[in-house]
Amino acid sequence: MTQKLAFIGFGVVGQGLAEIMLEKEKTLSEKYDFDFQVVAISDIKLGSVYDPKGLDLEEVLDMVESGVSLSEYPDGKTGWEPIKTIEESNADTIIEVTFTDMETGGPALDHVRTALKHGKDVVSTNKGPVAQKLEELQSLAEENDVQYKFEGTVLSGTPALNLALKTLAGCEIKKVKGIVNGTTNYILSKMEEGMDYEDALQKAQELGYAEADPTGDVEGVDAQGKTLILANTLMDAGLDLKEVEREGITGLTLEDIEDAKEEGHRWKLIAQAEKKGDGVDAKVGPEKIPLDHPLAGVMGPTNAITYTTDHLGEVTIIGPGAGKEETGYALLVDLLSL
Amino acid sequence: MTQKLAFIGFGVVGQGLAEIMLEKEKTLSEKYDFDFQVVAISDIKLGSVYDPKGLDLEEVLDMVESGVSLSEYPDGKTGWEPIKTIEESNADTIIEVTFTDMETGGPALDHVRTALKHGKDVVSTNKGPVAQKLEELQSLAEENDVQYKFEGTVLSGTPALNLALKTLAGCEIKKVKGIVNGTTNYILSKMEEGMDYEDALQKAQELGYAEADPTGDVEGVDAQGKTLILANTLMDAGLDLKEVEREGITGLTLEDIEDAKEEGHRWKLIAQAEKKGDGVDAKVGPEKIPLDHPLAGVMGPTNAITYTTDHLGEVTIIGPGAGKEETGYALLVDLLSL
Repeated sequence: MTQKLAFIGFGVVGQGLAEIMLEKEKTLSEKYDFDFQVVAISDIKLGSVYDPKGLDLEEVLDMVESGVSLSEYPDGKTGWEPIKTIEESNADTIIEVTFTDMETGGPALDHVRTALKHGKDVVSTNKGPVAQKLEELQSLAEENDVQYKFEGTVLSGTPALNLALKTLAGCEIKKVKGIVNGTTNYILSKMEEGMDYEDALQKAQELGYAEADPTGDVEGVDAQGKTLILANTLMDAGLDLKEVEREGITGLTLEDIEDAKEEGHRWKLIAQAEKKGDGVDAKVGPEKIPLDHPLAGVMGPTNAITYTTDHLGEVTIIGPGAGKEETGYALLVDLLSL
Repeated sequence: MTQKLAFIGFGVVGQGLAEIMLEKEKTLSEKYDFDFQVVAISDIKLGSVYDPKGLDLEEVLDMVESGVSLSEYPDGKTGWEPIKTIEESNADTIIEVTFTDMETGGPALDHVRTALKHGKDVVSTNKGPVAQKLEELQSLAEENDVQYKFEGTVLSGTPALNLALKTLAGCEIKKVKGIVNGTTNYILSKMEEGMDYEDALQKAQELGYAEADPTGDVEGVDAQGKTLILANTLMDAGLDLKEVEREGITGLTLEDIEDAKEEGHRWKLIAQAEKKGDGVDAKVGPEKIPLDHPLAGVMGPTNAITYTTDHLGEVTIIGPGAGKEETGYALLVDLLSL
């Protein structure tokens, strides 16, 4: 059966997915039995278009690249807002890639909620809704016999969640410990080479790893949201964001880095969730990791998570934590698993 | 529906699985909807017993521990050979954990073949049949509408195959590069600390990592089989064992280790399969890995694989490569996926 897809939001990540889908259309059909039609796109900046018979994705991408509004698309209805697109289009799956607000869930939360209520599957890379309302959204999905997938919220396309949920099925995850923010890991890697914090931050900004206002990364806010997602999805922790202790890397000096090195350790911004009694302790903060631990060797913008399990001891996955194609791919793997 | 299981072979790995299943019986039923009954066990040393209504697994394990033959089990038929057990018992799933011969596939190959022909699912940790007859066995499984699963053949329970096949679905695996033999990695780790080869080997033997005749490990034979499995299952390489080039670690001296250290490298026994044109090149041999690569940090008996993919670049998984519970768990995850 052909899956009918609607993109809500069509920024970098959405376009990344569209490009992969175009490139792999034949393989996806032959190897994974995945046939699709994109019937709608609704983006706050790029405009919106809906054609129940399917859009020409190549043309859409050309228009976006040339800066032409999607309202100029030759056929189809234009001007549909996200909610109208979710409610009234014939899409059976919503690709939710707008923007996120960790505190409120942002517009993404309304989109996900509306889609699930209308019996549509949702794949999304937005952390806000998962962090804020996971239980509600999972119940909604169950009630409406649809699915809500969000592999890309942690480690982008690196299958951190699916590794724990699927391929480690039957194992109990007792502890999760990881490097889940590439920007801070890049900065710490540069400081390891002797660069001071300000220079390393500037370098990260030049390379596009850090934003002009780096607070979300360097103060651990981004990592805090991801820690919450790991704790709540893999350990049923039922925590709120404010229950995840948070400390960033701005207090670390070159001297701290050097001292750790002498002890055979390396500072990393560590996201951690651990089962304790009936509950789960979750926190984000800088930690000295012994050099012989797999997390110590993870340098630059790369991310990694070590799962401590009952049957296998420690299992670590290392891979990219961001990127257009990498995050776009996270959506694809979610689509394939529907 | 309750899965009816028969153990063909009931050595360390089979007992490891039985212990996990007993311990987790309730969780497996509630969380994964997995209900089971062990109806038969046939082991060349421990004897055999078959009861179509199900055996008492706890009692069976007690008998084995006390050195009592399974033929003494109070109810049920005894003396059934593996093939008879596979053909005539009411088991719908065969847990094949006898012994393997990489060159011929050994008795395990007959067991797997017979089970698939009789319309029974097979889970197995035996490398021989996968290395020798993967294509035939997969066709047999398809014809008979059953499955053949073998996660435990590489990296024991660390989900190396499932990571690539399931959670990286939609990604093309272009290259596989890994440390797939724990014994040699332990020896090399000890040499890294300054111990010479002979002492390191002896230490590995004392700890049970290496066998009295260590040839299979140190000459790369074990890694060669695993490389073949990775190439054929993840890249459809269609190779024979002899097409996988092989070199062991016996030629490495402490001087080589020191020289590499000075260059910022570390010797590892590397299993590698890489797509080249229409084919796949596969080989096993010692290689100097730069210290900033995730594989360089994998020490002791731990195993790891780095997958080079189209959408995610490099993704690495690190975890145990052997062990009673770890390999037993590999069978459980295969059972859950049926």
